[in-house]
Amino acid sequence: MTATVKEFLEACENLGTLRLIVTSSGAVLEARGGISKLFYAELPKGKYANMHTEGFEFHLNMDAIKKVKFETGEAKRGNFTTYAIRFLDANEEPALSLFLQWGKPGEYEPGQVEAWQSLKDKYGEIWEPVPVEAI
Amino acid sequence: MTATVKEFLEACENLGTLRLIVTSSGAVLEARGGISKLFYAELPKGKYANMHTEGFEFHLNMDAIKKVKFETGEAKRGNFTTYAIRFLDANEEPALSLFLQWGKPGEYEPGQVEAWQSLKDKYGEIWEPVPVEAI
Repeated sequence: MTATVKEFLEACENLGTLRLIVTSSGAVLEARGGISKLFYAELPKGKYANMHTEGFEFHLNMDAIKKVKFETGEAKRGNFTTYAIRFLDANEEPALSLFLQWGKPGEYEPGQVEAWQSLKDKYGEIWEPVPVEAI
Repeated sequence: MTATVKEFLEACENLGTLRLIVTSSGAVLEARGGISKLFYAELPKGKYANMHTEGFEFHLNMDAIKKVKFETGEAKRGNFTTYAIRFLDANEEPALSLFLQWGKPGEYEPGQVEAWQSLKDKYGEIWEPVPVEAI
């Protein structure tokens, strides 16, 4: 599957409620929300995808993302599976992670895990986006 | 003023509604909320301050913070002053930033700017926290 980060992010709108996670050298911020109403801007640092909601704002430098990885894991609390998408930078570190957000531990929204699995089948477990040409 | 990051974060509860910002190599996440009900955990990576709300979660490795800096700026949109606190890592990069959150551009909550100024007067424009000993 040949796709840009922009196209892929827009496909992530189907994933329902997510936990968006950004990690710096010393802090982690996690916001709850779905991907929707993305808008774009070209800045000196790169081409950005942006989203504003009442509770949070999110900005992704799409040019910085070199790989996208689908990942399942074991929840730290509770015995259930987590479903994540990692947006990896040139050092293979996650610049952004999206986790399917559960309500009660392990209880996902109807169709949410299937939507994640369907994206994984379509794009592949690890894939390299092509550059965003114009926004 | 001799203080730990833990003591200072707790003093930040007086700042009212904030914009918490964490930046990775390729993404920025900004959440709106006040600092309150912090809880602590010692992990292999360091001593963490944590906060959970309905809309976001926040984790700060207090051991990673080497300097704290008060900073005013000019808002990108609108002609008004922004008030920030930067939690700097060993490379003097912000691991976490807290901005006073405005409602309408330039309109802060009553007493909010004064609380920021009072913290700045107490701690100094740039100061180095002492290590958190026990949590």
